[in-house]
Parts: sequence; structure tokens; C-alpha cells
Amino acid sequence: MAETAIQSTYPDDVAHCYGCGRLNEAGHQLQSIPNGEGTQARFTPRPEHTAIPGYVYGGLIASLIDCHGTGTASWAARTADDPAPRFVTGTLEVKYVAPTPLGPELVLDATVAEKSARKVVVEVTVKAEGTVTAKGRVVAVRMPDSMIAKS
Amino acid sequence: MAETAIQSTYPDDVAHCYGCGRLNEAGHQLQSIPNGEGTQARFTPRPEHTAIPGYVYGGLIASLIDCHGTGTASWAARTADDPAPRFVTGTLEVKYVAPTPLGPELVLDATVAEKSARKVVVEVTVKAEGTVTAKGRVVAVRMPDSMIAKS
Repeated sequence: MAETAIQSTYPDDVAHCYGCGRLNEAGHQLQSIPNGEGTQARFTPRPEHTAIPGYVYGGLIASLIDCHGTGTASWAARTADDPAPRFVTGTLEVKYVAPTPLGPELVLDATVAEKSARKVVVEVTVKAEGTVTAKGRVVAVRMPDSMIAKS
Repeated sequence: MAETAIQSTYPDDVAHCYGCGRLNEAGHQLQSIPNGEGTQARFTPRPEHTAIPGYVYGGLIASLIDCHGTGTASWAARTADDPAPRFVTGTLEVKYVAPTPLGPELVLDATVAEKSARKVVVEVTVKAEGTVTAKGRVVAVRMPDSMIAKS
């Protein structure tokens, strides 16, 4: 079965995000893949993504949770008429429960905790070598039309 | 009066953070400057730091708040014997209150909300062109000795 990333379905004009835009050559190009009830993303930090030597800096972890969260929200809110509704982050919370080692691939698993017409709440765990190192909660809200108008 | 960044006082072995390490040539090299009761940092995102075209991606904003928060915690907890104690992030919360335009310099102002022997809570606002676009709260905890040992 082909695994299509949620971000692959975004229209071109919203596919430039540094964290997850497939058209941003300088960015992370995070890909969130639906896997049944939830979604998963995998990302291997680069050597420069260090905090203190040996560990991943917290900002990258926050960024991955953010983009995986809004991507998962889009997937959760999809309809036949609107297969990739675009969401922005209202609130992001990250708990760093253990230092994240720099080197291994990180695995982000997300589930939808709440869904309404206007917003989707997504919970994310980040694992390195099977150990949870961070937990995130993203309150994603539908992108205002005014943001699209500016682009 | 010379303005010395808090991060300039970090020992070399903890000065490699992608967000704020002065020795990380690929990173943001954020500098947090004490200014009386609080601290301020300024950062101009690069063109690739986009969300949708015209706006800054949320992960960068989270990263700047994170590093400005832990830097401010270090400054708030400094003593004569330990002028730059190193903190890590326990919890990061970011509220995106308005889209952050891409282009202008961002100004981050931080104040210390709580301080104990083990942790410092820092509140941060992010402004673009005088408008608050994000608010953050960082619970910074003293870096465990075990992290230093690995480096």
C-alpha cells in the first residue's frame, strides 16, 4: 500500500512551510503518514541540530510536533470536497520528558484528541530508540481566509 | 554601556545549541540581552523561514522563545560563584495570537515569573512591527549533571 504523506496533498500555494513544505528546499520537509487511527512522521536531525553536544535542541522538537500536529489536523478534518483543509497552530505545548539523543531517527506518533468545525486538538509523542523523549499538544485552527489572501 | 548577551557567558562546552549557541555556525545564534528587570532578544527570520508565503513558521517562533527562555533563566539564577548556570526546557507553551509577518525583525521580551532553586519560569512575548504575535511560557530546569557527562 502506498504511503502518501498528508503534506503531499497540500495545494502548492501552502506547500512552502520550513517545517513541512515539500516545496521548501531549505526546510525539514516533514512527512506525516496516516496509519489507521493516527499518523506517524519520522525525521533524522542533522548534526547541527544540537542542544548541548549529544542531544537535539528543543526548538527542532517543537517544530516537528507543530507541523505534525497541523498536518494531522488537516487529515482529520478532510472531506470529499476539501481533501486537505489547511490549519494553523493556535497553541503549542511541549513537555520535554527526557533528553533526546542526537543521531537516531525520531518517530512522532499523533492522535486526534478533539475535533470540532473550527479546531482540532492533536496529541503527539516523540520517541528516540523506542524511548519517549517529548510529548506535545497542538491546538490547530482552520487557517483564516485573510492569511491566504496575503500570499 | 556594553550589552553582553547571556549566551556569550556560557562555557564553550554548552555553546553549541542550534538556537542560541555562539559556536554553532549553522544555527540562529540568538542573543538575549538583560535590560533591567527582564531581557530582550532580536532576530530577523530568513526568507526560507516561511509558513505560508508572507508569514513566519511556528517552529521558529517556538525555538526563539525556548532559547530566550532558558537564557533568561540562566541570567536570573546567576550567582557570583556560578555566573552562567545552564538550564534546559522542561515545558514550553506557545500561543500564536496573530500571524507573524515574514520580513521584519522580531523582538522578544522576557520576564521572570517564578524562581526556585531548581527551576525558573519565564514569560516571553514576540512582537513584529510593534504588534504582539506570540506569547510563550518556558519552565526551565537546571541541567542535570548526567547531560554534561555525556558531552
